[in-house]
Amino acid sequence: MIKIGVVGATGYTGVELLRLLSGHAEAELHLVTSRTEQGRAVTDLFPNLRGSVELNFIDPDPEQLKSCELVFFATPNGVAMHHASELLDAGCKVIDLSADFRLQDADTWADWYGEDHASPQLLEQAIYGLPELNREQIKNAELVANPGCYPTAIQLGFLPLLEQDLVHADSLIADAKSGVSGAGRKAVMTSQFCEAGDSFKAYSVDGHRHLPEIKQSLQKISKEEIDLVFVPHLTPMIRGIHATLYARLKDTSIDLQQVFAQRYKHEPFVDLMPSGSHPDTSSVRGSNTCRLACHRPQDGSTVVVLAVEDNLVKGAAGQAIQNMNLMFSLPETTGLTAPAVYP
Amino acid sequence: MIKIGVVGATGYTGVELLRLLSGHAEAELHLVTSRTEQGRAVTDLFPNLRGSVELNFIDPDPEQLKSCELVFFATPNGVAMHHASELLDAGCKVIDLSADFRLQDADTWADWYGEDHASPQLLEQAIYGLPELNREQIKNAELVANPGCYPTAIQLGFLPLLEQDLVHADSLIADAKSGVSGAGRKAVMTSQFCEAGDSFKAYSVDGHRHLPEIKQSLQKISKEEIDLVFVPHLTPMIRGIHATLYARLKDTSIDLQQVFAQRYKHEPFVDLMPSGSHPDTSSVRGSNTCRLACHRPQDGSTVVVLAVEDNLVKGAAGQAIQNMNLMFSLPETTGLTAPAVYP
Amino acid sequence: MIKIGVVGATGYTGVELLRLLSGHAEAELHLVTSRTEQGRAVTDLFPNLRGSVELNFIDPDPEQLKSCELVFFATPNGVAMHHASELLDAGCKVIDLSADFRLQDADTWADWYGEDHASPQLLEQAIYGLPELNREQIKNAELVANPGCYPTAIQLGFLPLLEQDLVHADSLIADAKSGVSGAGRKAVMTSQFCEAGDSFKAYSVDGHRHLPEIKQSLQKISKEEIDLVFVPHLTPMIRGIHATLYARLKDTSIDLQQVFAQRYKHEPFVDLMPSGSHPDTSSVRGSNTCRLACHRPQDGSTVVVLAVEDNLVKGAAGQAIQNMNLMFSLPETTGLTAPAVYP
Amino acid sequence: MIKIGVVGATGYTGVELLRLLSGHAEAELHLVTSRTEQGRAVTDLFPNLRGSVELNFIDPDPEQLKSCELVFFATPNGVAMHHASELLDAGCKVIDLSADFRLQDADTWADWYGEDHASPQLLEQAIYGLPELNREQIKNAELVANPGCYPTAIQLGFLPLLEQDLVHADSLIADAKSGVSGAGRKAVMTSQFCEAGDSFKAYSVDGHRHLPEIKQSLQKISKEEIDLVFVPHLTPMIRGIHATLYARLKDTSIDLQQVFAQRYKHEPFVDLMPSGSHPDTSSVRGSNTCRLACHRPQDGSTVVVLAVEDNLVKGAAGQAIQNMNLMFSLPETTGLTAPAVYP
Repeated sequence: MIKIGVVGATGYTGVELLRLLSGHAEAELHLVTSRTEQGRAVTDLFPNLRGSVELNFIDPDPEQLKSCELVFFATPNGVAMHHASELLDAGCKVIDLSADFRLQDADTWADWYGEDHASPQLLEQAIYGLPELNREQIKNAELVANPGCYPTAIQLGFLPLLEQDLVHADSLIADAKSGVSGAGRKAVMTSQFCEAGDSFKAYSVDGHRHLPEIKQSLQKISKEEIDLVFVPHLTPMIRGIHATLYARLKDTSIDLQQVFAQRYKHEPFVDLMPSGSHPDTSSVRGSNTCRLACHRPQDGSTVVVLAVEDNLVKGAAGQAIQNMNLMFSLPETTGLTAPAVYP
Repeated sequence: MIKIGVVGATGYTGVELLRLLSGHAEAELHLVTSRTEQGRAVTDLFPNLRGSVELNFIDPDPEQLKSCELVFFATPNGVAMHHASELLDAGCKVIDLSADFRLQDADTWADWYGEDHASPQLLEQAIYGLPELNREQIKNAELVANPGCYPTAIQLGFLPLLEQDLVHADSLIADAKSGVSGAGRKAVMTSQFCEAGDSFKAYSVDGHRHLPEIKQSLQKISKEEIDLVFVPHLTPMIRGIHATLYARLKDTSIDLQQVFAQRYKHEPFVDLMPSGSHPDTSSVRGSNTCRLACHRPQDGSTVVVLAVEDNLVKGAAGQAIQNMNLMFSLPETTGLTAPAVYP
Repeated sequence: MIKIGVVGATGYTGVELLRLLSGHAEAELHLVTSRTEQGRAVTDLFPNLRGSVELNFIDPDPEQLKSCELVFFATPNGVAMHHASELLDAGCKVIDLSADFRLQDADTWADWYGEDHASPQLLEQAIYGLPELNREQIKNAELVANPGCYPTAIQLGFLPLLEQDLVHADSLIADAKSGVSGAGRKAVMTSQFCEAGDSFKAYSVDGHRHLPEIKQSLQKISKEEIDLVFVPHLTPMIRGIHATLYARLKDTSIDLQQVFAQRYKHEPFVDLMPSGSHPDTSSVRGSNTCRLACHRPQDGSTVVVLAVEDNLVKGAAGQAIQNMNLMFSLPETTGLTAPAVYP
Repeated sequence: MIKIGVVGATGYTGVELLRLLSGHAEAELHLVTSRTEQGRAVTDLFPNLRGSVELNFIDPDPEQLKSCELVFFATPNGVAMHHASELLDAGCKVIDLSADFRLQDADTWADWYGEDHASPQLLEQAIYGLPELNREQIKNAELVANPGCYPTAIQLGFLPLLEQDLVHADSLIADAKSGVSGAGRKAVMTSQFCEAGDSFKAYSVDGHRHLPEIKQSLQKISKEEIDLVFVPHLTPMIRGIHATLYARLKDTSIDLQQVFAQRYKHEPFVDLMPSGSHPDTSSVRGSNTCRLACHRPQDGSTVVVLAVEDNLVKGAAGQAIQNMNLMFSLPETTGLTAPAVYP
């Protein structure tokens, strides 16, 4: 049993981590911290976990955290970068679900997150936790930067095209739609039921923080310079991301279905649908699957990839556990095999 | 492994049964039938099960069904009653998720369901599958009538009060609200997104088919004649039932919290919340728990019980598996321990 | 043209008032105040009013307010009671959409609202603005206390029964369900999309602030002592209240449909549906109608009244304008004839 | 008063037409037809219109229709083309809300709609009813083809760019999201609450019927050959379309905000938001406004236009009335000035 600590488990990512860990045969949830809720039972906040999680929130204490083999940070951006170093030095492994270790360049991080990075020396050693891209490195990692929700779906959709140099890298458009849980568990006007419900809108068109993370990854696998337009939208559903991806093909004679099938045939959590399919986000609700479908409308020169995932699972907590499994030499799918909850 | 057949698995109850059985360590899903979809892969209809269920629908064939140890009927009302007898004779156990075997009086059944009962001789032997009421009988049953969704929540809320004769049995009111999945997986106008969405309504106020089932059960445990007003409502959510139950207390000095705590302390799937709580249906989404809370507003003479469940799990497929576990001497919670999916 | 001021128009009740007033032929929207948003265009907050409302929010200034003929308070509870007196003295009429003048007893007000009432001397002169009950008094009122959203639907449903002494006054149950806009336009966790969406819950079972208001009104028209159990619920929709009302009949031979038809035949905003109907809240979305239907399930002794309204219109801003029309001798339906927006 | 007939008013477009016409000062709703519902009161189907529309549905009868000055067809595709000719010959004006007269080429129509066009001779005389494009022609039209819902938003977003030759015409992408009412008022599985709710999906990626209509219009105003990729999506809301439009700029120094402002400054139903805005579909719910915002992310070479409308109003019934106003020399905004219903 892996002895686990979760820092900052009062958000949606955190409670999802607790839900998934509670059913993981090799995970022992040792401690859960929260500055604001310390002393309260986890189930006071999250009654869905009654009977599954017996812990109380404690104040984050480095000494107690060091007693864990693995610490997840499910904190807001800017927290993990202050604490990871001490834990790593003590021999803990760390998976950070925030953005602190996703960008390899400290200056870019500072530009997008509005403060200096507190541990730039760790950026090189941090492994970007997208198993479909970095599986071998993750297995040996001490510090994993768990990808953002949008970046996971968008990268999985573009990867086969860029790896094989099939599209013009400066023609990428990612029109992505997220459920409201992507905004986190906090009381803000734009996420109120009467604001986000029965309505649809774009946001952050002029620059969303997930943009540099996506570009960094795609650039690494692309021969050409990447140009990506990324437009996120808020859609009136709780969980789920649907990324609609566009790129100009270099050669329209290529068999796209075959390219994707080949790329992902051994991936346990990427599911390529038959050609012509339209995946629903509800088909992945609560599961760790990213489901893809490829189209080439009107037999034209633009490829359209549809990618759906549960933003809280494959886009956050589930992927974090997938990374944990890799880091601790467990079967990669341990604790992650439950099918999606439909309807 | 229990060799299992599911008849009529194209509805929401059916697909939920498949979801839960796919994660049940002792269940071997042997065959799945559908007249309308025979030949198609289960996952063509239900992509959420891709990777979890590999079967194709077959035409229902008595001989193949007889090769199962247990057959679930997830069919519309009026189907199971034609087939159960043959299967029971062949040694199969049967759990019927429809209404065919819930009422013990064939005439009452005919009154409410509009046709004669095809197997009145089985009604006596059919065990009403509410484990909290009939656990021992279920263990020895060959034929279990799985309760309706409304009746499960309503009975669990009224049981402690009636068993101990604490309320006037002619003062019962059940104001119940169901998510739209309770109407089944079929294309009807009233369940269209634009009709059921962002709106709320009562329906069948003059008599819902679950009324006689509830009254039959409650009458058995009540010393007095039951009078129950049951008003179902449609609420714009997918899963979940919230029953708000009212009854006049005989003695207002009773400690209701204690009564409920005592009654359900050993029940794995009934969770009594602390006094003063207001359970959300989202706290049971996807799980087999019925969560209860007791109130006595203004210290008056009316007790108010709040009961929530997932209508497709504790109100249908989950309870069916709970019954299966009892019938096959498995631990009662096998395959049913996953916490609710929140948010 | 009536010169109108709106104090505190940044909530849902306020913006609805602006929407309705913008189409009212006799209303001249003169000023709109907000402490927090002063200086901003109304349409910055509420783009739906672009092209319809040209004002900027101003800081509330007594002198400017006194230049109005009518001032609406769409403020939180506890504001209007500090300002009404000065405005009334200056000759302004006042309609308060908050709870400040709804209860006639200052002590009861203090008990439920947690502070002393600032203008107890005005309570006697304040007219409770339910036109179906107090039409003649409203016509001559200077200060109108606009009813709460729940109280409007619940009173309209119980009135005919109590006025004619048809039910046992101690048997009243109001099981009411509200859309999330009833909680107001503010960032709170329980109204977040991921909390209130796809879920259903009761709240304030042990005592909601609308209870004393309802009891006060019903008691006035009842020969017997009222006992009312009121259980509010939150339902995942934006607008709408559905009240399901229960009472024990004294005489089951009464023709309920006839009683209600007679009572409301001249009421422009109460619509009795045919016997056996189940009104949807969507049938009143955006309109000032309260739609009713009567039932007597199983020909028993309990009457069930279903009442739906739009909580922001007949339950707030629309009713306020109906009161304005009466106070200014306009046709009662002026500005309120638009049918509901369906779907 | 214009004497009006509505053919096939049982769909969402039809009931919206009735709602808007009931408040139109110059419209006299003379008859409403429906084959399936003849004899029933309109308000039996649509209780929201109780008190506003007193008609019963009648069987469609050419003689009675000819007594109207204007006939709206709110029928499925393939109906109006069989009846328009006779009505036009009798001197009726006709506005068809279906697709029958939108394409000017009969062969293209046949390709996309799967049958021969019944009145190809009328295609030339039919005026495409987008007032922002064809206002003068509409004023003199006898037969107006009301645009589709997607095409309205998409054209209004691309028009200024193509008219002024600012973008590469072969780089157009329209990623559009529609509420479920766009699928019409009929019982189909994909529009069920449990299928379309809390989920998001693309559909018809390989070719939606609105594609040729959009291309036809855009080609007319473009100097270059148009290439458009159009991907429609279903989003869990009732009303509303959000089109996210992408095109490659020929010159990035152009002041896009100025271009749009200039183009639409006199348009009563096109509202350009300030630069950097993100319009919500809820800001146009129930209103005839199309609201636009322009972006150029990362100061790059791709322009992103956000366009929202209510698919049933500016995307259907409202635009039809706007056309009616033009055809009958009424002020263009008559009956269409009500602001959007928010929240």
